[in-house]
Amino acid sequence: MVKIAILGYGTIGSGVGQVLRENAALVEKRAGTPIEAKYILDLRDFLGDPEESKVVHDIDVILDDPEVRIVVECMGGLHPAYEYVRRCLEHRKSVVTSNKELVAAYGGELLDFAHRNELNYQFEASVGGGIPVIRAINSALTAENLEAVTGILNGTTNYILTRMKNEGLSYEEVLKDAQALGYAERDPSADVLGHDAGRKLSILSSLAFDVTVKYEDIRCEGITKVSQEDIRYATELGMAIKLLAKSRRVGQEVFARVGPSMVGPDHLLYNVTDVFNGILIRGNMVGDILLVGKGAGSLPTASAVVADVIDEAKHLHRSVWGDWKDERVHLADFEDLSCRFFVRLAGDLTQARREEAEEVFKAERFVTIPGLEEFGFVTAPIRGRDLHALIDSRKDVLSRYRIDEA
Amino acid sequence: MVKIAILGYGTIGSGVGQVLRENAALVEKRAGTPIEAKYILDLRDFLGDPEESKVVHDIDVILDDPEVRIVVECMGGLHPAYEYVRRCLEHRKSVVTSNKELVAAYGGELLDFAHRNELNYQFEASVGGGIPVIRAINSALTAENLEAVTGILNGTTNYILTRMKNEGLSYEEVLKDAQALGYAERDPSADVLGHDAGRKLSILSSLAFDVTVKYEDIRCEGITKVSQEDIRYATELGMAIKLLAKSRRVGQEVFARVGPSMVGPDHLLYNVTDVFNGILIRGNMVGDILLVGKGAGSLPTASAVVADVIDEAKHLHRSVWGDWKDERVHLADFEDLSCRFFVRLAGDLTQARREEAEEVFKAERFVTIPGLEEFGFVTAPIRGRDLHALIDSRKDVLSRYRIDEA
Repeated sequence: MVKIAILGYGTIGSGVGQVLRENAALVEKRAGTPIEAKYILDLRDFLGDPEESKVVHDIDVILDDPEVRIVVECMGGLHPAYEYVRRCLEHRKSVVTSNKELVAAYGGELLDFAHRNELNYQFEASVGGGIPVIRAINSALTAENLEAVTGILNGTTNYILTRMKNEGLSYEEVLKDAQALGYAERDPSADVLGHDAGRKLSILSSLAFDVTVKYEDIRCEGITKVSQEDIRYATELGMAIKLLAKSRRVGQEVFARVGPSMVGPDHLLYNVTDVFNGILIRGNMVGDILLVGKGAGSLPTASAVVADVIDEAKHLHRSVWGDWKDERVHLADFEDLSCRFFVRLAGDLTQARREEAEEVFKAERFVTIPGLEEFGFVTAPIRGRDLHALIDSRKDVLSRYRIDEA
Repeated sequence: MVKIAILGYGTIGSGVGQVLRENAALVEKRAGTPIEAKYILDLRDFLGDPEESKVVHDIDVILDDPEVRIVVECMGGLHPAYEYVRRCLEHRKSVVTSNKELVAAYGGELLDFAHRNELNYQFEASVGGGIPVIRAINSALTAENLEAVTGILNGTTNYILTRMKNEGLSYEEVLKDAQALGYAERDPSADVLGHDAGRKLSILSSLAFDVTVKYEDIRCEGITKVSQEDIRYATELGMAIKLLAKSRRVGQEVFARVGPSMVGPDHLLYNVTDVFNGILIRGNMVGDILLVGKGAGSLPTASAVVADVIDEAKHLHRSVWGDWKDERVHLADFEDLSCRFFVRLAGDLTQARREEAEEVFKAERFVTIPGLEEFGFVTAPIRGRDLHALIDSRKDVLSRYRIDEA
């Protein structure tokens, strides 16, 4: 029997309780021993809840009980989550967390500390909800030199972009509806500005490339400026606009960026729509591997937490995951990478303007939408900084998007 | 340092050598120790190959060398692969195999034998090439009660069906071309009759449902009867025909089938085209998880083999995967399950025939193709055996397909 404690009994913490109860027999078989929650730490009391009797309000009860071998942190936020996790490890308890903020900020340090003490610190649920993407990187694609990670890591923005495309609605209209349906927070900024995706990208990139990629170093652009016109052009080109979180390693340099990008129908992420998340991992031997699933929700996320708990219960005296070097990497500038761009210019597409675009931007494919006094085109591959040098001084540029071809 | 031996130095065996050489530093970091091939067993000599000096022709050299801790079996076929693997385990060597025939036939027995002796027997490469689907089931989705596995498990047939759809070619035309390009074997029967997919489904189902699903018990229908007309109807309905390998658990009963099926654009496997494989796993907590990648090829498959070798090198004295009960399950009859069907009938779609189809088949959606004296329709959900009772006595049925909605 392995006893655990759950810190924070909100959406995910209560889901963990439910998965442990409903799949108890399976969990026991796979862990080789029953797993039982002994304590739940929360400020509230949860009268009537099946786990009511386990609720405590003082972390020291948990820290001081040597029977508790594994602690599940589902509190969210940086503080006191960081202090609690650190103290749990100091008290020789392995930790599972679903808290992406914490992992993005302190993952390298906590992993390193856990490993030096033959403990485990796992966080499958911090990226992609129930999609086992961290295990794919850490435990499955171990024979690979990973070259790139490209993900749709935020379900809220993917839902908004999908409805804008399918229903011809504006960003504001869909956001309002998503908030009413509970798919978007009242303050949606972490999602729509790309920060949530950026945190998840920092975790995946750190693991994939064995460096510490700080979230603060990743340039994040959200979806708030994506217009209905942009989406109509993308559709006209047979493409879709996605909020992509992408990192690459080229030689010793690591590049990372979050931003809206266009993808064509051959792109494996093109069809990852609605609230689904998708992560494309490229290795030097295996090529591209895609993982797709629901990236949020109480039970999918709790399922990933419990998978970590099972793993830790099987390895009480041995660290199972590799760590990432706890050393902040200097990110190379994504603008040094080349790709095709989509550019929209104001004004009619005359022969003169077509020739200018072909000469200046190496435009290869033009598109117009009836009724709009403007046009769009796809450029030849060009470095981001070179494109910006071309457009920064112009007043006719309505928008521009990277076209992801990976 | 962990020394290994490779049995069979063909496409996959030589790929394993290449992955171990090219990614040596990474492999060492992840295994915690260098991994080196000491012997290669083959009938041939491989003069000039980087591994030439390691070639031996006698299995006993490997069995009698206690320094060899892990043996990689890439010989294919049942015999002598089975005897060799069994003897390796008896000589206290863990085994990695890419041989789906062997795993499908003897997986339960060999896993059980390995575990009783604290050894490992792993076979990630036996299904889906480099896609880590077996780890997803065995090591990642461990908190899940798995309900269904639905896969496109054979790249050759997926390639043929994709080209038939995109280019309007017949099965025979594409097959000939695929053979010329090396995408299909000279004798393509294992692929096109569904047997290869059936073997892989037996492995996935055994692991997912903890029973032994025998390949011989799975009803396999191939793609040889899929006509250009069938594909035109599917396209007209916005669907695609895929060779699906599907198993489900309903209560205590396990159902499994391989056969061509129609899927709509919302189905997560709809866009898995060309030589890609895709596996959709449904759990009771996480919902649907999709994994996609190249399901074959020397390096992707070798990558999965080396991932197993790394795992075994980290666990020389401990079995890491769960086993499946080595007890042949009595498969329930897939025809007892209900789904929508697509049915094609000869003759013009008159008002009388429409009414008959609505009454007899609960037809809900009709489709005709100009120039063809026939029509198709989609039925309401109906049990397979009930549909067959309706069509077996009729002479006007041109074809019928299950419509997969999972």
